[in-house]
Amino acid sequence: MSTEAPRRVPGSGPAAVRVFTTVLTDGPVSRVDVARLTGLSPAAVTKAVRPLLDAGYLVEGELEDRPASVGRPANPLEVDADREFFVGIKATADELVGVVTDLRAVVRRAKHVRLRDHDVDHVVDAIAKLTKDLLSTDRAFQRRTTGLGLAIAGDVDHHAGVARYSPFLDWQNVPIARLVRKATGLETFVENDVKALTRAEQWFGHGVGSHSFALVTIGAGIGCGLVADGQLVEGAHDVAGELGHVTVDLNGAECMCGGRGCVETVASERAIVEHLRSATGEPELTLTAALARARTGDAATQRVFREAGRAIGVALATVANLVGPERIVVSGEGLPTYELVEEQIREEFGRQAYGAARCDVITREMPFEEWARGAAAVAIGQLLAAERL
Amino acid sequence: MSTEAPRRVPGSGPAAVRVFTTVLTDGPVSRVDVARLTGLSPAAVTKAVRPLLDAGYLVEGELEDRPASVGRPANPLEVDADREFFVGIKATADELVGVVTDLRAVVRRAKHVRLRDHDVDHVVDAIAKLTKDLLSTDRAFQRRTTGLGLAIAGDVDHHAGVARYSPFLDWQNVPIARLVRKATGLETFVENDVKALTRAEQWFGHGVGSHSFALVTIGAGIGCGLVADGQLVEGAHDVAGELGHVTVDLNGAECMCGGRGCVETVASERAIVEHLRSATGEPELTLTAALARARTGDAATQRVFREAGRAIGVALATVANLVGPERIVVSGEGLPTYELVEEQIREEFGRQAYGAARCDVITREMPFEEWARGAAAVAIGQLLAAERL
Repeated sequence: MSTEAPRRVPGSGPAAVRVFTTVLTDGPVSRVDVARLTGLSPAAVTKAVRPLLDAGYLVEGELEDRPASVGRPANPLEVDADREFFVGIKATADELVGVVTDLRAVVRRAKHVRLRDHDVDHVVDAIAKLTKDLLSTDRAFQRRTTGLGLAIAGDVDHHAGVARYSPFLDWQNVPIARLVRKATGLETFVENDVKALTRAEQWFGHGVGSHSFALVTIGAGIGCGLVADGQLVEGAHDVAGELGHVTVDLNGAECMCGGRGCVETVASERAIVEHLRSATGEPELTLTAALARARTGDAATQRVFREAGRAIGVALATVANLVGPERIVVSGEGLPTYELVEEQIREEFGRQAYGAARCDVITREMPFEEWARGAAAVAIGQLLAAERL
Repeated sequence: MSTEAPRRVPGSGPAAVRVFTTVLTDGPVSRVDVARLTGLSPAAVTKAVRPLLDAGYLVEGELEDRPASVGRPANPLEVDADREFFVGIKATADELVGVVTDLRAVVRRAKHVRLRDHDVDHVVDAIAKLTKDLLSTDRAFQRRTTGLGLAIAGDVDHHAGVARYSPFLDWQNVPIARLVRKATGLETFVENDVKALTRAEQWFGHGVGSHSFALVTIGAGIGCGLVADGQLVEGAHDVAGELGHVTVDLNGAECMCGGRGCVETVASERAIVEHLRSATGEPELTLTAALARARTGDAATQRVFREAGRAIGVALATVANLVGPERIVVSGEGLPTYELVEEQIREEFGRQAYGAARCDVITREMPFEEWARGAAAVAIGQLLAAERL
């Protein structure tokens, strides 16, 4: 099932992606400035630009006032945002969130649909229908969309296009990229959702130009995307950033993963709800109700949230101590909880992060559309790095 | 004190180092093969090779049988090992270990000296004397040595050449590179010892050609060097791989670092000895004696080692889950302990590492000469990447 894709040569990097994202961020920009900003040689820039121009992804802008004597004209480069559109879909346990983005990864359409069950055929059909609905809103989308990115939680082999293990969908070894490609006719890429979001941040978001950062998502699960030395840490076997299953208490409770004392045994939504119910003796207590109660000063619920905050703070410190990012961005659907426990998180992070590893920790809201945009960004990146350019 | 060095452009990589290490590993090798093996363009290889040839670090070998019609001759490249020599010094709390290596990082001389105290001037004098002794053994060393690498445990700003915090030497913000340069006349580079060892593995050891690996050292401290996507993870503030201060028990004992339940509170040599003494009620019990006793089946000492093994196993799983290396190499002066607790380590690692992150864990002995060689490797790498080439 698993096809081993050829590994990139260390450090060679996808020059096309680097050139493209530089033009995207800093355009209109001359080739000389692209070389300076990317660290590529002028020859490598010229080589990378050519197919991007030929394919119409980049266009040459007008010459600015410039003395003729300066030599070879250096028309500035720009991205043609409408040259191609991309579908991005994030699948959660409950719904599909789909977007259409342009080549700049700007969301042009968005749509949510409920997911009734997790049967693979059903999910594939729902993805195909959602894609059709999204693209049908604009003739240009229909004509100029060839790529689809799909983001799901769990263990994804994105080279082979296989969902190896998705706890929320209860999938194992599903060749989902192939199935979705067949159902939609679009070139399909599947990626772990947190990695997809991290790539979007790196290529099209706040991570552009950042040497290293970590994106930590809290909510149903606790995830982490890492960029070190300007590269997404993919993991040798496509597993990395599994912060939810990092141990914070080696004598702690058993986790669904088979481990013990994982961050998620204390700080996932499911764990928080379970602990809230057992702390209050109310088996029907919801997270929302408990949050409200904790905000009014209720000690029993506050204690549960505090423990979750401590585990998250320790987890952030583990990321800082091991990888040393410039900045940690915290996001995810669990942010309302985060706000309640931010003090514990900061206190624990401050204590456990080692010396200079005590980096900035900031929060940023990312609704599920943002995650779907991440999926589209993966398709954009794959397209740019593809052989066919 | 801290001078912010300019950051490398993400992914640009030190082409000279890549070319050099490729020739080192695969030489004699043609430029075409160097391009293929490094992923650099032929133009970039030619550009990187030129100053290495000019400086005599590389030499062109004889042409092999090759039809004249193939065009431009492609003389294979080789490293001239004796072109230059390097001093590498590892400082521990008790001694200095010094080596002289050639350009291939092969150790040609080694010498240990006791370190009587940790006063900065005293250590600098001892380093200067050791360097002089090492170099005086060979006229070629004296004539062709310009660089010295120094490896010390703790928080090192290697760009600025400052030991920001060294717990074993009890140093804070010591501009050690400048002081050693002044005392020895050699261009001096200082690096965290585990990172130095990791660089040596990456450039000149078992890590050559490896996309990602982790080196975990156990002993007085627990350290970790990480290579992801072919690059050493340096950390934005020069701190990364602080595995000893990753929390494994958020309700655990206080650590010297100010944190709680760090790996080192359970598994450092000091912690193991403390726990052994309190478990046996013998305040003078040594590690060696306890190891011997545990090997004969003594339950009280075995329990202490077992707990250390569990913490190390969890720590290895944390590395695997977060960074996903191809392989984890375990080394360090604590290996005798490791062997005793290997079963616990493997059991805990197997339980806590997440799915495909469950990578190979191997052990490898690295005496302190190997660490000193790592320090020399840092000097070699700096030389190759330096502007002056």
